[in-house]
Amino acid sequence: MVDYAQIKKDLEGIAVEDHPALVKQKSRDFYWYSPILKSQLDNVTADLVVSPVTEEEVIRTLKVAYAHGAPITPRGGGTGNYGQAMPLSGGIILNMANMNKVKQILPGRVIAETGVIISELDKQTKAHSGQELRFHPSTAQTATIGGFIAGGSGGVGSITWGGLRDLGNILRLRVITMEAEPRILDLTGWDLQKVSHAYGTNGIITEVEMPLAPAYDWVDVLVGYDDFMDAVRFADTLAHSNGLLVKEIAPIAAPAPFEYFTRHKPYLKEGQSVVVIMVAPHSMGPFEALVSRYKGDIRFRSDKVESMKGIPHAYELAWNHTTLRALKIDPSITYLQVQYPAPDHVERVRKTVETFPGELIGHLEFMRFDGSIQCSGLPMVRYTTAERLEEIIRIHEDLGCPIFNPHRYTLEEGGMKQTDVVQLAFKRETDPKGLLNPGKMIAWDNPDFDFKAGKNYLFQGLAAFMEA
Amino acid sequence: MVDYAQIKKDLEGIAVEDHPALVKQKSRDFYWYSPILKSQLDNVTADLVVSPVTEEEVIRTLKVAYAHGAPITPRGGGTGNYGQAMPLSGGIILNMANMNKVKQILPGRVIAETGVIISELDKQTKAHSGQELRFHPSTAQTATIGGFIAGGSGGVGSITWGGLRDLGNILRLRVITMEAEPRILDLTGWDLQKVSHAYGTNGIITEVEMPLAPAYDWVDVLVGYDDFMDAVRFADTLAHSNGLLVKEIAPIAAPAPFEYFTRHKPYLKEGQSVVVIMVAPHSMGPFEALVSRYKGDIRFRSDKVESMKGIPHAYELAWNHTTLRALKIDPSITYLQVQYPAPDHVERVRKTVETFPGELIGHLEFMRFDGSIQCSGLPMVRYTTAERLEEIIRIHEDLGCPIFNPHRYTLEEGGMKQTDVVQLAFKRETDPKGLLNPGKMIAWDNPDFDFKAGKNYLFQGLAAFMEA
Ligand SMILES: Cc1cc2nc3c(=O)[nH]c(=O)nc-3n(C[C@H](O)[C@H](O)[C@H](O)COP(=O)(O)OP(=O)(O)OC[C@H]3O[C@@H](n4cnc5c(N)ncnc54)[C@H](O)[C@@H]3O)c2cc1C
Ligand SMILES: Cc1cc2nc3c(=O)[nH]c(=O)nc-3n(C[C@H](O)[C@H](O)[C@H](O)COP(=O)(O)OP(=O)(O)OC[C@H]3O[C@@H](n4cnc5c(N)ncnc54)[C@H](O)[C@@H]3O)c2cc1C
Repeated sequence: MVDYAQIKKDLEGIAVEDHPALVKQKSRDFYWYSPILKSQLDNVTADLVVSPVTEEEVIRTLKVAYAHGAPITPRGGGTGNYGQAMPLSGGIILNMANMNKVKQILPGRVIAETGVIISELDKQTKAHSGQELRFHPSTAQTATIGGFIAGGSGGVGSITWGGLRDLGNILRLRVITMEAEPRILDLTGWDLQKVSHAYGTNGIITEVEMPLAPAYDWVDVLVGYDDFMDAVRFADTLAHSNGLLVKEIAPIAAPAPFEYFTRHKPYLKEGQSVVVIMVAPHSMGPFEALVSRYKGDIRFRSDKVESMKGIPHAYELAWNHTTLRALKIDPSITYLQVQYPAPDHVERVRKTVETFPGELIGHLEFMRFDGSIQCSGLPMVRYTTAERLEEIIRIHEDLGCPIFNPHRYTLEEGGMKQTDVVQLAFKRETDPKGLLNPGKMIAWDNPDFDFKAGKNYLFQGLAAFMEA
Repeated sequence: MVDYAQIKKDLEGIAVEDHPALVKQKSRDFYWYSPILKSQLDNVTADLVVSPVTEEEVIRTLKVAYAHGAPITPRGGGTGNYGQAMPLSGGIILNMANMNKVKQILPGRVIAETGVIISELDKQTKAHSGQELRFHPSTAQTATIGGFIAGGSGGVGSITWGGLRDLGNILRLRVITMEAEPRILDLTGWDLQKVSHAYGTNGIITEVEMPLAPAYDWVDVLVGYDDFMDAVRFADTLAHSNGLLVKEIAPIAAPAPFEYFTRHKPYLKEGQSVVVIMVAPHSMGPFEALVSRYKGDIRFRSDKVESMKGIPHAYELAWNHTTLRALKIDPSITYLQVQYPAPDHVERVRKTVETFPGELIGHLEFMRFDGSIQCSGLPMVRYTTAERLEEIIRIHEDLGCPIFNPHRYTLEEGGMKQTDVVQLAFKRETDPKGLLNPGKMIAWDNPDFDFKAGKNYLFQGLAAFMEA
């Protein structure tokens, strides 16, 4: 048994919280998005929350935890929606939110501490020199940059820049290892893949260096279409228009916009699908020319409304926020994550739309993937049973549309499918006791797990919580 | 007969030049690039050069010329390489180079007079707010922005933004019509296609509004490969790397780099092909990681040389500058313009490389085309006869690689193939007497011309020069 009372003493001088209600609060994220994760993870909680304010305090905390054999689960804003930040074996939540300084802003790059809120980072780089991050998750107002790198993949701006997986979209990460004597590593180039999207299992990020793009006063536009496929075709053409600078293109099928986008409802038309778009001000003229050629119906543009007070950013209608808004109105809704490989992505979308009338509500995100335009989908699903959800996944795969299952808490089942051997080898080096966010990397915990057996992985530590 | 003495009087107060040597000098461009155009156009000359400094002077000049029935050929920097700016019927050269003021710089856009030299425009926008044009021809140091729009297509930066033909890459053109009472038109959106790439046959541009991108201190890099196809494959991968910000990617086959790039020669290795690249400083780290994975040999990088004195910009090794450098060393060289349609562009390149060993020296320019990465080629050709050149063109077309013939002075034969009905209709409206740059738009001069008959178009006015 780990002696948390002693750990608390050993951490004297560092902010530690052990009040069960407060610890429980910092032990959850948006796992409840998934009805399946909700039932699995509901009892999960840590023993302590430690909130370092300097890298030195991080190192001290890791050293103490290592000595005691206490698991450490890092946490940024806690907006992950696969339970990424939930401590499946209990232990210590390492709350990184207080390490939030922006350290240096240069042409095309910024150096910041891991815990800075993304929108705050953008605010500072914009004020400094008219720059902003290349892309951000739709949770920019609450998520941290380090949490995005460790738990996210892409978002608003990925239509231009692709995702975090792409070489050049992260420049450097400063990482502390989980060893008797924690080391400080500065990772660049291909080495970044060892730590990015590793759910905090491969070292604690303390500092990030990220590339910047020019910041513009992006105009939010909602373009209406009576037919969802017309919306998709327009979105695809827009995405392929080299000369139009946009930051977001998301077609969302009726009835979602009118039913779920309550603050925009006065501008929308019942029964219409919409394309949610962010356009650079200097592209608005030619953008309108394209919309009119494609017979779109501009229902909303943020540069023409009297006041944006009370109206959320367009990007907060997109990505996982679409589902969030649906859930608020209709809790029976859940979702999937689908890839529609280029160049036939539009035709693949058409087939899936045709296959699930009434059951799936289309939601696509256009993005650049290895240099090509394609779309991913976050279709909303009118949830009936876990079996039917599995069946819907299978039908998608038969149609050539791979699914990244958002109802799984492990790295492998959530998307990688195979173990990332680079990440696994790195873990052996930097976390020999396997104390970092245990249960998230199947390859570490159970190298013999049979992914083909049709069973989901159930982590031991979690089993204990479920019995409790 | 047009009375040029009277015209000179009528233009009192506006700068007019009629000294034959000086007029002849302003009547030529880089037509001599092509051995075929050289022989056709060598005698072409205008009667007067008029150099307005204000829009008002432009209007007065057009009015006078219209009244006298004098042809007008606008001219920017005279760097066109298809004889675009050469007055096939003589008449007036309208030299726009003195209308060169930058009027307003805004976030993402600039408003300037037509005659400003492109590199000077970039210098001013960069100094003002760290911005620059999205792309420019490799002649940026000598070409005007208006001449680029009227006579060019794309260039350095097209890997990100595509070309001038793409909606959004020109925001507005202010154009004066050639009528008894010249009108001022402000064109935007789809209307821009009436005037851009019309060789000055559809109105005189006086002012342009162009989108801007962020300016960086681009690093020039030359990466060597022993095998040209390895260079091409690396270039293609680089072009598809979403996270790496580059402005130029041009693979150039041996022996060209070592033989023709005299100022870079000390850095190059005989027998190697190179990829000419411009990289944003903040992408250099991850770029090096990619080069090393693809076993490239970085021969030159401008951020590491002691001094760039006497060394040209990397982009002045690319686009039509490659041929220019070849011609200086070996006057028997000429060139073609080839398109290798995506997604099989690399394979198509391989086939053409295989087909013309020793006769063609590969030169590719990667660019974005309707949202996809592809490459165009400007292969250097060891010229033998006009017949063999036609044969090489035919073989390319048989391999699925359309040719834009750079040895033709008309819009149609140079690339459009078909008459642009929008441009033709606009010409009827804005130049009813057909006085603007006569001979460049076959559809206007000879609507019945048979493109299939295997003969090149010979403009009447030009025939007169050739007889002289
Ligand atoms: C409504 C909604 C919308 C969303 N939209 C998007 C989107 O558009 N794109 C997208 O990619 N994701 C999206 N997500 C998922 C999530 O919000 C993002 O990945 C987000 O950036 C996570 O940041 P966070 O600070 O909240 O991280 P947390 O949830 O706190 O942590 C995420 C993971 O990172 C680890 N971690 C946190 N900090 C560190 C650190 N310093 N060192 C090492 N590991 C660390 C945690 O252990 C956890 O595994 C969305 C989620 C919701 C609920
Ligand atoms: C070495 C070399 C490299 C080159 N590289 C490129 C390249 O990378 N990309 C590319 O696209 N081209 C390239 N070109 C072609 C040419 O340089 C460009 O198109 C250039 O931008 C033309 O600009 P200019 O001012 O010299 O125009 P000019 O040659 O003076 O004129 C070009 C055409 O535009 C018309 N014109 C000029 N001003 C006006 C006006 N105000 N209103 C209406 N019509 C007008 C002229 O009548 C003429 O038909 C290259 C040429 C050379 C010789």
